[in-house]
Amino acid sequence: MPEFRKDPIVGRWTIIAEERAKRPMPLRQPSYLGSEGLCPFCEGNERFTPPEIAAFRGHGAGPNGTGWRVRAVPNRHPALAIEERLDKRGEGVYDRIGGVGAHEVIIEGPEHHDSLSCLTPERVREILWMYRDRLLDLKNDTRFVHGLIFKNRGAAAGATLEHGHSQLLMSPVTPPIIEQEINGARRFFDYRGRCIYCDIIEQELGDERRIVMDSSQFVVYCPYASRFPFEMAIAPKRHASRFDQLTKGEIDELGSVLREAVWRLELALDDPAYNSVIHSAAFDPHDLPHYHWHFEIVPRLAPIGGLEWGAGYFVNPVAPETAARCLRDVELRPHAPSNRIEWRMTSRQSGLLV
Amino acid sequence: MPEFRKDPIVGRWTIIAEERAKRPMPLRQPSYLGSEGLCPFCEGNERFTPPEIAAFRGHGAGPNGTGWRVRAVPNRHPALAIEERLDKRGEGVYDRIGGVGAHEVIIEGPEHHDSLSCLTPERVREILWMYRDRLLDLKNDTRFVHGLIFKNRGAAAGATLEHGHSQLLMSPVTPPIIEQEINGARRFFDYRGRCIYCDIIEQELGDERRIVMDSSQFVVYCPYASRFPFEMAIAPKRHASRFDQLTKGEIDELGSVLREAVWRLELALDDPAYNSVIHSAAFDPHDLPHYHWHFEIVPRLAPIGGLEWGAGYFVNPVAPETAARCLRDVELRPHAPSNRIEWRMTSRQSGLLV
Repeated sequence: MPEFRKDPIVGRWTIIAEERAKRPMPLRQPSYLGSEGLCPFCEGNERFTPPEIAAFRGHGAGPNGTGWRVRAVPNRHPALAIEERLDKRGEGVYDRIGGVGAHEVIIEGPEHHDSLSCLTPERVREILWMYRDRLLDLKNDTRFVHGLIFKNRGAAAGATLEHGHSQLLMSPVTPPIIEQEINGARRFFDYRGRCIYCDIIEQELGDERRIVMDSSQFVVYCPYASRFPFEMAIAPKRHASRFDQLTKGEIDELGSVLREAVWRLELALDDPAYNSVIHSAAFDPHDLPHYHWHFEIVPRLAPIGGLEWGAGYFVNPVAPETAARCLRDVELRPHAPSNRIEWRMTSRQSGLLV
Repeated sequence: MPEFRKDPIVGRWTIIAEERAKRPMPLRQPSYLGSEGLCPFCEGNERFTPPEIAAFRGHGAGPNGTGWRVRAVPNRHPALAIEERLDKRGEGVYDRIGGVGAHEVIIEGPEHHDSLSCLTPERVREILWMYRDRLLDLKNDTRFVHGLIFKNRGAAAGATLEHGHSQLLMSPVTPPIIEQEINGARRFFDYRGRCIYCDIIEQELGDERRIVMDSSQFVVYCPYASRFPFEMAIAPKRHASRFDQLTKGEIDELGSVLREAVWRLELALDDPAYNSVIHSAAFDPHDLPHYHWHFEIVPRLAPIGGLEWGAGYFVNPVAPETAARCLRDVELRPHAPSNRIEWRMTSRQSGLLV
């Protein structure tokens, strides 16, 4: 069974999950088909996922059949297990917790698209609603402290299936990087009495050089100390510490902003692999005055070396000012058919995809 | 010119180095040859590196010619520049420092090998001596606070050249992960009055399940909260906070230990890409009682997803107890010729390599 183990020096939690070794991920070459030889996320193939947890469907359509627009299902190879017990224990200098949690997949549409930019803004909004619904439902389980939403697109970003999907991981501890951010933001708040993210947003909007998009409620920018070329952040202008505090008006706007930001990235970098992660505080009845939720979107262009892994030094050959200018200057136009789309057609023609 | 930029929230320094974009690294497919179409690190090709800084050579052989065993040269595409100025400045909420530093390459032998395990223990020792010599020389430049030694082996680990080499990066700040470790170890020391690494080594030697090798002065083990399958640490049993404090007796033994540890990893995982990094404290006239230098060796088997990048959650499908057993049980035998070695032969035959 999975367990959390804490690095005793830096305090970082790692999930040891030997079960995960069974997932269909060849170590060097990810496959884009499920073990059945077809895409388990396409409409018509619902029987190849575990029974659904939630879906947005047309009237009259029953669960686990066709007719849905967004669908949430359990991850077939979960990093954490809902039936695990917390069981906090020490072992000499070490600490561990049982690998309790929930790991769901949110399928972003019935057709075999691989990007949010292929969808209408309305459909992207529905995906955001599903994120929020699933978080609000799962936070009723008091064992969970944090809900993380992330997305891997493309093999280089760690995706094992091509069909557009996000993942939701509920866990009994706060993920290490979010914890680091919350602690850092608290130190600034203690000293200055303000949210550091609110200060950053104000400074970026005044400076303009790193701004990619500026809508009425959100700002998209390339962070000052970007670790990766073309790294982007999307932050709400209204202070809120958690994603699930989004209002309807904000979701309406975020659907368009997120879609366009991803579209710009895809056009600027010729359809890169990327990771996107929602940084959101741990569940708390109160809003934290010092932490500000945001999206982080990181294209995965080059392999990571020892300098980055081993020492935490990121060497970024593209200044965020350069990246932001390039992303701003992109001419928005529909995608040219990519290799992946051609692959998809072949698979469909050969009857692999129903 | 390169510069350090500090993430204002977590305090992590990133190096923005637009010059680095010019290095010969296609974004998706690294090449194993230099821009001249041959290996610039092989004996006879010395003219294709910048003039050497140091070398171990036979008597009578002059610099920049043949006859060397280990050679240190400037990195042709340095992440930091020795002629840069410190120039610490703020910019609103942000901080930056000029990208001053030294970035050297240590070529691990005259022949086109790609692994320490191909070398005799004596030759591995000479590489360790070169690490130590270069650190001791460069620390005379008082702008430098820290010297980092790391190694990328294989394309998936970020290597751009195949020929066995390490890198040395001197910088005016402590690398983020080392800083995190030093701070965490200090907290433990303040509370318990002991070095946490010394405690870990004692506990691991007593427990035995995660031990790979146990020599008289060093221990090789798979860390309790390993982030990656088959991650290894090599730590000296004698407390010392910096690598350059190694004694001759320790270097003699470490040469054999490091060579065998890498050899075991290569046999267990069929010649994987890996990063190895020496974690060593910042320069200080005194030894730190709370920090303990060590090697970290991480095979790069699978792509890294949003869970790892974005949230700092590592999901490791191989428990360190399983990995250590497997590494202990390896039968030590010479390498079978790998694809890379065959490639090398072909290149030699075709006259590409002199």
